Amino acid sequence: MLDVLDQVRAGTLAPDEAARRIGALPFAEVAHAVGTTVVDHHRELRTGVPELVYGAGKTADQIAAALRELARVQGGALATRVDAAKAAAVRALVPEVAVHELARALVLGARPARPPAASIAVVCAGTSDLPVAEEAALVAEFLGAPVMRISDVGVAGLHRLLARLDEIRRADVVIGIAGMEAALPSVLGGLIDRPLIALPTSVGYGVAADGLVALGAMLASCAPGIAVVNIDNGVGAAVAAVQIARLAVRA
Amino acid sequence: MLDVLDQVRAGTLAPDEAARRIGALPFAEVAHAVGTTVVDHHRELRTGVPELVYGAGKTADQIAAALRELARVQGGALATRVDAAKAAAVRALVPEVAVHELARALVLGARPARPPAASIAVVCAGTSDLPVAEEAALVAEFLGAPVMRISDVGVAGLHRLLARLDEIRRADVVIGIAGMEAALPSVLGGLIDRPLIALPTSVGYGVAADGLVALGAMLASCAPGIAVVNIDNGVGAAVAAVQIARLAVRA
Amino acid sequence: MLDVLDQVRAGTLAPDEAARRIGALPFAEVAHAVGTTVVDHHRELRTGVPELVYGAGKTADQIAAALRELARVQGGALATRVDAAKAAAVRALVPEVAVHELARALVLGARPARPPAASIAVVCAGTSDLPVAEEAALVAEFLGAPVMRISDVGVAGLHRLLARLDEIRRADVVIGIAGMEAALPSVLGGLIDRPLIALPTSVGYGVAADGLVALGAMLASCAPGIAVVNIDNGVGAAVAAVQIARLAVRA
Amino acid sequence: MLDVLDQVRAGTLAPDEAARRIGALPFAEVAHAVGTTVVDHHRELRTGVPELVYGAGKTADQIAAALRELARVQGGALATRVDAAKAAAVRALVPEVAVHELARALVLGARPARPPAASIAVVCAGTSDLPVAEEAALVAEFLGAPVMRISDVGVAGLHRLLARLDEIRRADVVIGIAGMEAALPSVLGGLIDRPLIALPTSVGYGVAADGLVALGAMLASCAPGIAVVNIDNGVGAAVAAVQIARLAVRA
Amino acid sequence: MLDVLDQVRAGTLAPDEAARRIGALPFAEVAHAVGTTVVDHHRELRTGVPELVYGAGKTADQIAAALRELARVQGGALATRVDAAKAAAVRALVPEVAVHELARALVLGARPARPPAASIAVVCAGTSDLPVAEEAALVAEFLGAPVMRISDVGVAGLHRLLARLDEIRRADVVIGIAGMEAALPSVLGGLIDRPLIALPTSVGYGVAADGLVALGAMLASCAPGIAVVNIDNGVGAAVAAVQIARLAVRA
Amino acid sequence: MLDVLDQVRAGTLAPDEAARRIGALPFAEVAHAVGTTVVDHHRELRTGVPELVYGAGKTADQIAAALRELARVQGGALATRVDAAKAAAVRALVPEVAVHELARALVLGARPARPPAASIAVVCAGTSDLPVAEEAALVAEFLGAPVMRISDVGVAGLHRLLARLDEIRRADVVIGIAGMEAALPSVLGGLIDRPLIALPTSVGYGVAADGLVALGAMLASCAPGIAVVNIDNGVGAAVAAVQIARLAVRA
Amino acid sequence: MLDVLDQVRAGTLAPDEAARRIGALPFAEVAHAVGTTVVDHHRELRTGVPELVYGAGKTADQIAAALRELARVQGGALATRVDAAKAAAVRALVPEVAVHELARALVLGARPARPPAASIAVVCAGTSDLPVAEEAALVAEFLGAPVMRISDVGVAGLHRLLARLDEIRRADVVIGIAGMEAALPSVLGGLIDRPLIALPTSVGYGVAADGLVALGAMLASCAPGIAVVNIDNGVGAAVAAVQIARLAVRA
Amino acid sequence: MLDVLDQVRAGTLAPDEAARRIGALPFAEVAHAVGTTVVDHHRELRTGVPELVYGAGKTADQIAAALRELARVQGGALATRVDAAKAAAVRALVPEVAVHELARALVLGARPARPPAASIAVVCAGTSDLPVAEEAALVAEFLGAPVMRISDVGVAGLHRLLARLDEIRRADVVIGIAGMEAALPSVLGGLIDRPLIALPTSVGYGVAADGLVALGAMLASCAPGIAVVNIDNGVGAAVAAVQIARLAVRA
Repeated sequence: MLDVLDQVRAGTLAPDEAARRIGALPFAEVAHAVGTTVVDHHRELRTGVPELVYGAGKTADQIAAALRELARVQGGALATRVDAAKAAAVRALVPEVAVHELARALVLGARPARPPAASIAVVCAGTSDLPVAEEAALVAEFLGAPVMRISDVGVAGLHRLLARLDEIRRADVVIGIAGMEAALPSVLGGLIDRPLIALPTSVGYGVAADGLVALGAMLASCAPGIAVVNIDNGVGAAVAAVQIARLAVRA
Repeated sequence: MLDVLDQVRAGTLAPDEAARRIGALPFAEVAHAVGTTVVDHHRELRTGVPELVYGAGKTADQIAAALRELARVQGGALATRVDAAKAAAVRALVPEVAVHELARALVLGARPARPPAASIAVVCAGTSDLPVAEEAALVAEFLGAPVMRISDVGVAGLHRLLARLDEIRRADVVIGIAGMEAALPSVLGGLIDRPLIALPTSVGYGVAADGLVALGAMLASCAPGIAVVNIDNGVGAAVAAVQIARLAVRA
Repeated sequence: MLDVLDQVRAGTLAPDEAARRIGALPFAEVAHAVGTTVVDHHRELRTGVPELVYGAGKTADQIAAALRELARVQGGALATRVDAAKAAAVRALVPEVAVHELARALVLGARPARPPAASIAVVCAGTSDLPVAEEAALVAEFLGAPVMRISDVGVAGLHRLLARLDEIRRADVVIGIAGMEAALPSVLGGLIDRPLIALPTSVGYGVAADGLVALGAMLASCAPGIAVVNIDNGVGAAVAAVQIARLAVRA
Repeated sequence: MLDVLDQVRAGTLAPDEAARRIGALPFAEVAHAVGTTVVDHHRELRTGVPELVYGAGKTADQIAAALRELARVQGGALATRVDAAKAAAVRALVPEVAVHELARALVLGARPARPPAASIAVVCAGTSDLPVAEEAALVAEFLGAPVMRISDVGVAGLHRLLARLDEIRRADVVIGIAGMEAALPSVLGGLIDRPLIALPTSVGYGVAADGLVALGAMLASCAPGIAVVNIDNGVGAAVAAVQIARLAVRA
Repeated sequence: MLDVLDQVRAGTLAPDEAARRIGALPFAEVAHAVGTTVVDHHRELRTGVPELVYGAGKTADQIAAALRELARVQGGALATRVDAAKAAAVRALVPEVAVHELARALVLGARPARPPAASIAVVCAGTSDLPVAEEAALVAEFLGAPVMRISDVGVAGLHRLLARLDEIRRADVVIGIAGMEAALPSVLGGLIDRPLIALPTSVGYGVAADGLVALGAMLASCAPGIAVVNIDNGVGAAVAAVQIARLAVRA
Repeated sequence: MLDVLDQVRAGTLAPDEAARRIGALPFAEVAHAVGTTVVDHHRELRTGVPELVYGAGKTADQIAAALRELARVQGGALATRVDAAKAAAVRALVPEVAVHELARALVLGARPARPPAASIAVVCAGTSDLPVAEEAALVAEFLGAPVMRISDVGVAGLHRLLARLDEIRRADVVIGIAGMEAALPSVLGGLIDRPLIALPTSVGYGVAADGLVALGAMLASCAPGIAVVNIDNGVGAAVAAVQIARLAVRA
Repeated sequence: MLDVLDQVRAGTLAPDEAARRIGALPFAEVAHAVGTTVVDHHRELRTGVPELVYGAGKTADQIAAALRELARVQGGALATRVDAAKAAAVRALVPEVAVHELARALVLGARPARPPAASIAVVCAGTSDLPVAEEAALVAEFLGAPVMRISDVGVAGLHRLLARLDEIRRADVVIGIAGMEAALPSVLGGLIDRPLIALPTSVGYGVAADGLVALGAMLASCAPGIAVVNIDNGVGAAVAAVQIARLAVRA
Repeated sequence: MLDVLDQVRAGTLAPDEAARRIGALPFAEVAHAVGTTVVDHHRELRTGVPELVYGAGKTADQIAAALRELARVQGGALATRVDAAKAAAVRALVPEVAVHELARALVLGARPARPPAASIAVVCAGTSDLPVAEEAALVAEFLGAPVMRISDVGVAGLHRLLARLDEIRRADVVIGIAGMEAALPSVLGGLIDRPLIALPTSVGYGVAADGLVALGAMLASCAPGIAVVNIDNGVGAAVAAVQIARLAVRA
């Protein structure tokens, strides 16, 4: 914008034309279309987090194109919600892509340098929650945070959780992941003094089939200060945790 | 029925008339109407549990009449869901009724002798759950079971629960009561080896306003073997616990 | 823990190191990882019920590994929610596994000795409820309880239920199973004086498609004392019933 | 319409004007406004059932005016959902109105002659369902059907229902009324061979608080052929039953 | 039962043994097991409607066995909710079965003689509702009622409905079928004076995807007296309509 | 903005300060606080519709202050959702306010000149829908559109609607209002060729108690092109209709 | 109708026969059956919009037949919700059909002349919403309106939307399309003064899986005057927009 | 615990008694009962946040007692959800209590020293959200964080938000508060790079009546990294924000 204003001062640009340009310019220049998708390269500038490719509603072609465009500009790119078959199809198009099976994610290129971040514990109640937990862990690492993974510490075997409590307390931010009745964050929330992001999963059946009971239990927790993201939203939990973890290491 | 059949053998009753009477008799004789309400005096014979008066949808007149009729035949009677105003109105009609404020219950007459029962722990997560917990405790005692009350042991302060675990383990049956995210039964269920009845309450707000999250969390518990009753159903939890506790002391 | 304390008294262990060990030890020693799954061998000690393998979210490999680890330590192991294809795949890995088709369950090894238990009636409303009923029956037997199976006694043909009432009354604990409008437990609950666990199934269509109507009807039953488990949760109903049935035969 | 056509034949009316009149006339003539309310005097001609005044959303003034207008033309009129306070207010305006307290209904004038109808049994599970049951009974009688009232025959005391089954079987149409888990119609539906209208009530609490469980259970009944009306809709059940009962006595 | 009572009079049977037999006999004799399914041959005696085979949760083997057993005793049998593949499989087992493709139904044997019934109009809003409509029509015919089919008369093209109103009015009972917003029964209900059974379908998407909006609209209809069955429940609508239609032709 | 740019050209404002001002200025100048409320005087410039005061969550003081501030600048102001008691309290503070009882609305000052608009028909199914209908009509008139009110034309009496169809067709935009099953817009939508805004009301009980069935039915209508607003949202329907009606009279 | 009336005047038709014909004729003549489907050729006369074929519940045969019949009479026809496989099958039957892949739509024949319409902006939040957006755009064009497509302007990158605001403001009617939290219409609604149709999509997962959150957010928008259609209902949004856009260009 | 272990080393405590004490001691000592409420003085040690009194389900007596006990030990205490009447009653009991009307909160005593915390912006969409926003602000201040309040910046007037964006960006943590469709956090989340806690309110009507749409929209936001608390949960949002803000100022 200063460019435009300098031209105005220099008299080489009329004020009204400058007004028009200022309205359009700061936004238009970032619009870079990849097919029908507009990749938002300015997002990292604004929010500190680059665009991540959400693979669920996209074809292998669309995922490959978006990963390439993002990696071209940013050095590295990540796609989530890519099932095994689609991952294979993307790899056929972009052989250098790395496939993370458990997390159902793809990474292209080296991880670009990012702001430093404090450590994040990804704490997970059951085996079935692992894909969501691994998505969160992988995204947090991609965004530059050191991650500690702690699995299978559901509250039905309370000793498993208590045995690893010291470890959890060493992290600066905690992501608590659970499906079914999702009691883990409530118990954790009463034991630690760090920010706790609760991530419900759709693991369960009957009343718990879609994760709504887990979500509700996390939101209604009697332990105050638990902040919750959408069901199975590993990306959201990771981004929230990283934004917090970056604050913790500011000079 | 043997009466009728004896008359048939004696020839004083025709078989077809006997058939008709047998169809009607075993049921009809217990129908004793109190106004528009039919009091079911045979219920205790069939199910081991006498009819209890559910006060919520009834007038003070109807509650008073039902308590009197039940106490007349059974020696003692109990009404639940009677708020302070209605309790006062009933007491004006039946001065000898005892009012249990916290439990919102009324008792008329001495507790009749009942089958022996093992001990029941009524374990409650928070202060706001106390009215429901007290309803459960009072009904269990009315039905003849010894009751141990343990309050304010919600999982957000895990130490409060663990500090009283030995006490809880001494009971034969446990009723676990909680509102909001209702994590208490899940934690309890992983720590004890006795039958556990989970009783959700409508304590909470937002997503938890009506107790459905608490109910869902109890049903979806990762601790297997937890059996659940309706929201705020202290009577139901007590009856279930007493039926179990009676089994435990059979000769 | 006494070991650690003995060392402290002997002066061979410093108090602060002992404090650290005590915090970790009673829990850590039971943690035995099978791949990403932590098998909880202490669960039976705490709750009287061993870990059962929930097959729905697991691969054949994971099921096979968990069954082997559990059977190695406990002598026998059981997995539920294993469909025909997955069952075949597990059998290819562990040929000595026994496949229970109707119950969609696998059993490995002989049933270990378990505490004695009184008898359980598994009472089922319709043909379509049979897989859930059989899961409950199989699990109850695996946990050491004698089981009586009574099928197709839905209330739309009341005579079918009444004809078998004497049989049902001979059991100490009853599991009542139904889908659709699930009226069976209400009718049963008014006819028997034993603990009644109600198990809703997802059998039905339209408003009843997911079992929520059956669940709601069981929770809202006008027969007091019915305790309910999650939809299609045969394991939960069996565990609850066995914990009750064990109480009934205590010396 | 023949009038108009006769005029066309006579040449006193142009065909296009006639076309316009025919479009408007058969409908316009029945519109008789009472304040802002349009009373539909032709409804009984079309559907066999006169307009009934639904009092819930109306003021005492509006109810009084509607009753008077309907009674003026039809000889008698009925209003439902009129609570005690509003009933008193209407009576102050129209002293000759008869107040039916339990049914929360008002009747003005003598019941006009109506087509004959077969008998209807109004069968009700519990005391709390009585206001809805009485609304149904009163409306059915107002529409000319003989009504038999049978109360407090809920399935938790099955003998109470079986004891009165012969009576119920003597009716030509049955209305089955229940709240909570609403098992009554399922049991009834398996025992009788007459049309059965199921009427759910909002009696209950927790999961059953609004009558949706009762409604769902009736719709999902395993007894085929049960037809259901809206929660607490005594008027609807009565109208459905009367339309059936009239068919049964056609010459 | 008279047999037993005759023996008692003759002195060949002791009263107490007779009492036991009477309890069991009237019900036990109808229990005829087909594999795990108990076929209820007495249902037609009690309710006027024979057991119909619900094919959705059953294998081709189970459907074939049930059809054969029912046809053996009753002369004819009908199965619903049998998709094309399953229908072919049943036909391979029972070649004489007739497949009704649109209605997804199978009929085995000649239709047995049934009580006379008045005529039923099956009125359907849209093309997509036809399978449900045809199921209703076929079942009504199987139960002995004459059926008139009227299709594609949804209210968005009101003239289509009005053009066929005379025809509809000639039927004694009307089944109104619609998905989406299901306005057809409300409009019909204001135009006819016959019993109207409303049958919602799961046709629709978005808010209407599962038929709950259609069901709700039918239950909430401002036209009084509409009785509703479960979503897509062609069998239930047909049984209700036939029970009404039989009343209409009683001598 | 040109002011700022002129200063830059004149050299009296540095480019970076100008950049800062441009960011803030176009928005900041419209912020005019009334107590804690920020009145948005620019809204009419941006959207063609002035801020209307939503009275439901506000005190009489807040409503009075907002009306005065809006009337001061715009010449006239309107508040909705003001019940009788609150209306009286506002009038005590601002005696010149006009109270519209049926619409539960207040108007202060003369209606300011607004862009011309074509005519709007406000068509309403039942008497109970009138308050919502009148709110819509009043707001549309306040925004400058001529309004035609047509009441009590619900589809259960189809003739009432058809009798007034010509009148409705003379309007350029139609607002169709209904509660319960809300079939009116579907029928209307098949009969007119003008934009149709559907406005559901919370009139009803049982399944229809909160207006969700009416909303769902309108959204799922088989008549394409019906656009729907929130339940009881008379303001929203009026604004949508006026924005359309203004388009229709553009030169 | 004038034909009939002319015959009456000429005396060649008796008034009563004329009355019967007038009742049936204006509706019957448009009923032209294609197999089981009744094509409504008069719909365009009544509503300005021809029948469009909804492909979701239809076979390729039914779609082909309906397209042919509609194109035969109207010159062109359009089918929506036709997936790739079904589209290929229809093309095999009707080779001249044009397949629009992204919109999942088929067009047969040249677009018939239609009334003029003002321009419509189809504004879409994300890539995954494109199929629904393209359906809306294609239908609007088929109905004769000029369409401007604006994609990927979701509010999480506000600059993308603001950069294209001038363009959007040039349209006369705007369709705003979004899934997930669907904030786009609220932001748009505060920035433009034209009619805004909001179209929610089922894009999302967890709480947003079915589009209900998007729908709810659009209905609850704080920007007044947004009118909403059913989830994924591109056809409905297009028809609503075209009916508005036609008003805007009336002479 | 070291005390106990020192005694063991000194030989003054037997190991088994020590084991028992260690199990009970760390938890038991904090249990200090106030009537039926157990105040948890150790909570601040464990979680960094003291117990706050939730006033909604408590009597004035209970609130007063809890505030006094907490203030006695901690120097200051805070109660939320105390309406005007209850606040007056508490003040009558504890005259030195400070009443915060808008926030519906009470504070007793001086705010105790707490760990330093970075600044928090409390950003609120509409006037009706102010009570919830003020509760969040007050609690954050009570916990020691500097708070910046920004009100009435809902997205329907986007300029109001953009005008204050620089201010918001100066905070380290942001709480975004909105009811109705709750688009504010989505827009904010795309513009800032700080942790964002979204707090839905129950402000709204129709589909938005209970805050579930606002909650859903926040959870489904297309801006990644937004963490959400329960509806109207100002306390929870404040605690989460403070725990984050403390991390940001750690040495």
